[in-house]
Amino acid sequence: MDKAIFFDNAATTRTDPEVLESMKEWQGDNFGSPATLYAFGSQAKQAIEQARQQLADLIGADQKDIFFTSGATESNNWAIKGVAEALAEKGRHIITDQAEHHSILMPCRYLEKKGWEITYLPVDAYGLVNPSDVEQAIREDTVLVSIVHANHEIGTIQPIEEIASITREKGVYLHVNAAQSVGHIPVDVTALSCDLLSLSGHKFYGPKGVGALYIRRGVRIDPLLHGGGQEKKRRAGTHNVPGIVGLGKAAVMARKNLDAEIERLSALRDHIIEQLEKNMDDIRLNGHRTHRLPNNVNISIEGIEGESIMLSLSYPTAENARPVFISTGSACVSGTLEPSHILLALGLPAELAHGSVRFSLSRHDTREDADYALKALFEVADRLRSMSPVYKRGAKQCATGKSGEGCDCEAAS
Amino acid sequence: MDKAIFFDNAATTRTDPEVLESMKEWQGDNFGSPATLYAFGSQAKQAIEQARQQLADLIGADQKDIFFTSGATESNNWAIKGVAEALAEKGRHIITDQAEHHSILMPCRYLEKKGWEITYLPVDAYGLVNPSDVEQAIREDTVLVSIVHANHEIGTIQPIEEIASITREKGVYLHVNAAQSVGHIPVDVTALSCDLLSLSGHKFYGPKGVGALYIRRGVRIDPLLHGGGQEKKRRAGTHNVPGIVGLGKAAVMARKNLDAEIERLSALRDHIIEQLEKNMDDIRLNGHRTHRLPNNVNISIEGIEGESIMLSLSYPTAENARPVFISTGSACVSGTLEPSHILLALGLPAELAHGSVRFSLSRHDTREDADYALKALFEVADRLRSMSPVYKRGAKQCATGKSGEGCDCEAAS
Repeated sequence: MDKAIFFDNAATTRTDPEVLESMKEWQGDNFGSPATLYAFGSQAKQAIEQARQQLADLIGADQKDIFFTSGATESNNWAIKGVAEALAEKGRHIITDQAEHHSILMPCRYLEKKGWEITYLPVDAYGLVNPSDVEQAIREDTVLVSIVHANHEIGTIQPIEEIASITREKGVYLHVNAAQSVGHIPVDVTALSCDLLSLSGHKFYGPKGVGALYIRRGVRIDPLLHGGGQEKKRRAGTHNVPGIVGLGKAAVMARKNLDAEIERLSALRDHIIEQLEKNMDDIRLNGHRTHRLPNNVNISIEGIEGESIMLSLSYPTAENARPVFISTGSACVSGTLEPSHILLALGLPAELAHGSVRFSLSRHDTREDADYALKALFEVADRLRSMSPVYKRGAKQCATGKSGEGCDCEAAS
Repeated sequence: MDKAIFFDNAATTRTDPEVLESMKEWQGDNFGSPATLYAFGSQAKQAIEQARQQLADLIGADQKDIFFTSGATESNNWAIKGVAEALAEKGRHIITDQAEHHSILMPCRYLEKKGWEITYLPVDAYGLVNPSDVEQAIREDTVLVSIVHANHEIGTIQPIEEIASITREKGVYLHVNAAQSVGHIPVDVTALSCDLLSLSGHKFYGPKGVGALYIRRGVRIDPLLHGGGQEKKRRAGTHNVPGIVGLGKAAVMARKNLDAEIERLSALRDHIIEQLEKNMDDIRLNGHRTHRLPNNVNISIEGIEGESIMLSLSYPTAENARPVFISTGSACVSGTLEPSHILLALGLPAELAHGSVRFSLSRHDTREDADYALKALFEVADRLRSMSPVYKRGAKQCATGKSGEGCDCEAAS
């Protein structure tokens, strides 16, 4: 991994060494369970309560409203199914959108089978939900609106405040999946005015296997994991103390560096987009140009498959070349070759959706890394396009480098 | 923790240093997500598949039938609610027993509210379920029987094979919560003949926050966590790679040492029971004397509160004394002062249930530790009994040490 360039940080990030250091005590000598009453358990209890406060501070929440889970997938399932069950007598209608993560869409589809009705709102060409669509979709029997904060694939940041002002007025809960935004951009549950918010440790340099659900006081939600009295009887199971402590530490680190990192990464992102647009023809930036995560670049490259690009970059043939790890479509569904449902929701034709690649940057990445990766991408894309049966081969091979239908190579020479 | 004696290993165990060592690579340089297609993710995928095989080897399963979760609470919730939902059209009746862990009872109570019917079988004075009770309780609409393998509080091992021969004949699924038995006694899903089996890493020297559910091929069960395609689309969420690798390593270590540890710990357990019965009056061994986990001792001490004993042992007043950590009732519900539902299910009066303490031993504990803890317990119990308003004070303070109603102290002197 020393020389590799890891640009797949929306899938997972490297756990920060300081985070790992913070976990050591609780993986070693101090291994007690916080559920016990003796001193040894009390220390673990204090440690998780400190982590709860640290996480609450990062998202502007009351620490009493933070509930630790095993990750964002559990948090999303809990939010959706927990509210659906708790309010089933009020109504069985939920609103979400077509460009959500599978850990939102799949629980919704599951509820559909069980008799709930789900409205999947469209998104515009940038992936944005229109707040007035939310307003129009809300019915008497609507119990929950679930909209992502920032899209994991295209980085588009949704107008959550506007949506929240509608749900609040209508008396409908708003759940926000903030797995991609927490630790990367400001996330403040008071400013967002949401009722529930999901997050995951490993998406912002914390450990895998731990996350949280923010539940505003008074929100009615059934548990997903029933059992012991942990987490005020709302989420059972022995606390993953090292994981929770690591999540707290990751929150502290993210909060400290947030503004500087946003500035640095936004500049790096914009540099990458600029270089892509300057050096490549027939590409399309997916997602919104400004309402966008600082660490996300997603482009469709006409005429070639994202899978081929990804694999070529990750297994470079030249000696001493640095592998570059990027993703195509959603990392969660890689392994299938279906086009990304998110890109299709933007209105992209399937060919372009297939040709999408995502760079997702981290706090470890430099401009040098980015330039190396760009150069590698240009080479790979040229090579793949030259072999492509669908891409306009002649135009690409001509020395002018001009794209489009009318290659004027011969005319100019 | 250096000098403390930790006899609360049924609550949680110390993660083995070799387990922690095995996790390091995946917490550090090799942090990729197995869901990705490039080489970096493939290594993580290989690591979790190796862990899956290691765990399968420990419990005699086909590795394809192992599904990783965040722990036994999730596994138990998944088994019960997942089967209930998948088979709702066949019937809505589930059988369990009164002495189960809360992570079994609470999902059952939740289902009751949703229209399912639950039969809670009684247990005998040793905590044993009578297989013929299971047979009689099975109805046309029964879809699941869930019986623990070994009780977390009293260590009683249930006759799972006998119960399984009944459920199998009747065509009803059998789920076994094996959180306390896996890694401590032989657990073989073929021999047990169960359909589902839950386990947890941190109960046998693995990490917290990771567990598994064994699902025999063909068993119909809905997911609990919907989302990405992980775990053959049955359990979504980014894999906790370090945790899963650690669980695999814990399985390898447990398998290697199982027979020797059973012999060693059974002897230590019996030594403790013998010393307790020899040196203390008016105590009662809870649980079965032979169908019992090798690492479990549970006694009720007449006239005093388990909580007082536990706290006194954990905060010794003498200089240089070693703190001894034990539990009273279930560690999961400590913090409340309600008597343990398990001890009540055995038929113990509330006073005796309140006076129960559990020693749960680990691979680290020696006879010297046990003797130290016993001596500390005798002193604490004597002191507490001498102050007890309910214990027969006169008898206890007399020099003969004889117990019972007729103190013959004066007569003898």
